[in-house]
Amino acid sequence: MNKNYARADIQAIAGYVPGEQLSGTVIKLNTNENPYPPSPRVGEAARAFDWESLRLYPDPTALPLRECASRIYGLPRECILCGNGSDDLLTIALRTFVAAGEGFAYPEPSYSLYPVLAQLQGARRHPIALDGDFQLPDDVLRQAGEARLLMLARPNAPTGNSFPKEAIRRLCREFPGVVWIDEAYADFAEDNCLDLVGEFPNVVVSRTFSKSYSLAGLRLGLAFGDAALIAEMNKLKDSYNTDRFAQAMGVAALEDQEYLERSVARVKETRRRTAQALERQGATVLPSQTNFLLVHPARRPARDLFLALRQEGFLVRHFSLPRVEEFLRVSIGTEEQMELFLEAMGRLDR
Amino acid sequence: MNKNYARADIQAIAGYVPGEQLSGTVIKLNTNENPYPPSPRVGEAARAFDWESLRLYPDPTALPLRECASRIYGLPRECILCGNGSDDLLTIALRTFVAAGEGFAYPEPSYSLYPVLAQLQGARRHPIALDGDFQLPDDVLRQAGEARLLMLARPNAPTGNSFPKEAIRRLCREFPGVVWIDEAYADFAEDNCLDLVGEFPNVVVSRTFSKSYSLAGLRLGLAFGDAALIAEMNKLKDSYNTDRFAQAMGVAALEDQEYLERSVARVKETRRRTAQALERQGATVLPSQTNFLLVHPARRPARDLFLALRQEGFLVRHFSLPRVEEFLRVSIGTEEQMELFLEAMGRLDR
Repeated sequence: MNKNYARADIQAIAGYVPGEQLSGTVIKLNTNENPYPPSPRVGEAARAFDWESLRLYPDPTALPLRECASRIYGLPRECILCGNGSDDLLTIALRTFVAAGEGFAYPEPSYSLYPVLAQLQGARRHPIALDGDFQLPDDVLRQAGEARLLMLARPNAPTGNSFPKEAIRRLCREFPGVVWIDEAYADFAEDNCLDLVGEFPNVVVSRTFSKSYSLAGLRLGLAFGDAALIAEMNKLKDSYNTDRFAQAMGVAALEDQEYLERSVARVKETRRRTAQALERQGATVLPSQTNFLLVHPARRPARDLFLALRQEGFLVRHFSLPRVEEFLRVSIGTEEQMELFLEAMGRLDR
Repeated sequence: MNKNYARADIQAIAGYVPGEQLSGTVIKLNTNENPYPPSPRVGEAARAFDWESLRLYPDPTALPLRECASRIYGLPRECILCGNGSDDLLTIALRTFVAAGEGFAYPEPSYSLYPVLAQLQGARRHPIALDGDFQLPDDVLRQAGEARLLMLARPNAPTGNSFPKEAIRRLCREFPGVVWIDEAYADFAEDNCLDLVGEFPNVVVSRTFSKSYSLAGLRLGLAFGDAALIAEMNKLKDSYNTDRFAQAMGVAALEDQEYLERSVARVKETRRRTAQALERQGATVLPSQTNFLLVHPARRPARDLFLALRQEGFLVRHFSLPRVEEFLRVSIGTEEQMELFLEAMGRLDR
């Protein structure tokens, strides 16, 4: 038996398990990708991309991308940090604000990466149990305890619901550490918390290009926060964390807000229709402000139905986690994909 | 005065400062980029790249890239980890093998990122003073102390020299923790340590696509090590740390080993000629096994000469660090660029 050289707390954990990336002819509704391609402007920028320039390092600060984001989101560029996907930004957050042994709070159930990030940083976990409707409980602050960082996804994943903005504002005011609002799905929601960044010195809002902008393959995320918070996080990021191609495509995507709105509107319309149809079939569908639905099957155990769907080439997500293990998380695909999915559900959920 | 929410040890540090990325007409010899473009196969792959596929997440394990690297470097794919640049891999190393408060050893002077990574992880620093010729001292093991990880660049930066392979092999055998050999510049050297990976369970060798492959703009690195070490590091990396475009371009670059050899040979020939010419001008040039030269000016203080060169559009690197502050680090450019540089040195170094 070889010696294990890793830190004891790293040896002890399994690590984060991303959704499956199967090849072959499957209908892939398991990782909340956008079923529509990125803006045609991304295509133009890709064709115009000077591949010979790849010999040079990228701009470490991603300035053109931050300037573009500054115009679109209305916050100064020194309040913006670019990440290699928003997961990179979440890692930077843990490392900037939480020393090993200190506390990190997050709702449960939520994005299953949060507790993994805590383990990787050696942070103490303060899971905050959501109530019966997957809403924030009244005693959030008590449950957060001495945490240095409170991270919550709004809208939440994998539940799909949002939290009342006034409750978030109160948290920002009363929580003594940093409140990180992970808005990966905010473009599909009724509102967002970007304005809280200007209001509070302890608030960061993160966004991703992976969902609404259809750029999961690129790895780009943005964090918005007080310039002082951004400056500290900047020390933690790899100098060249976003590459030349991603920066250029990111600018092209941001500049086409009209396409973004159309793409999001299509997904939301399909979400509405799919939820109605599933409910007609007898399933329970949680109200969603995201590009996925959390579905309680009508008759068959969720894990069982997950495997039956997989057998027929429909890949959805099942979490073997308390409180969501009886649900399936279904990403919104195209209209055609969802019709095929509904047909399969009608046959298999019995 | 606002409260500072960052960890105390993060507040206290300045962070890593990458080389300048100036725009305008400069001759850029400051960040060890390759003066030649990537392989034309990268160009073909870029033109053929399906930008619509960017809506999908990349392969989290970068399997095609690892399989290609496995063929070329002769190590099994489970012994290979892909990073978002080799800096990403160095960060993963610190986080996997060194808990906050534990020791991290590295030679000094060396890559100035190493002590920064130690600070970011809250690790105790064990700098190992190189001897007068920038060689490893006899008491490396004593200086490394209780460190869990010993990281060294071979060839070393910014000094440009290598260390005898037998000394490295002895270190691997005798050091009780992980020995990480950072081979960012190995393609420009006389030999490398890739075979030590199969020989020892505690050795990792890292490579980058930024130098010899002319892909600094992409962010791609590879780590080679025992499958058990790679498995632990895999838990620390972001699930999707390398993007679709980078993975595809990486495969194209790896597949053109003939181009790589020609590109490296040109750089080495220019390195030889530049070193000779500088010595004829009276400068002292350290023997280099990299794509840069460490140059002690003939007459003018290094910092002063750095500024004079900058004024004329030549960007080289000056480090305000003990033992190298009287040197300039000059990346090898094209033949034409180096002739212009030599002409400027002849005028300014007096």
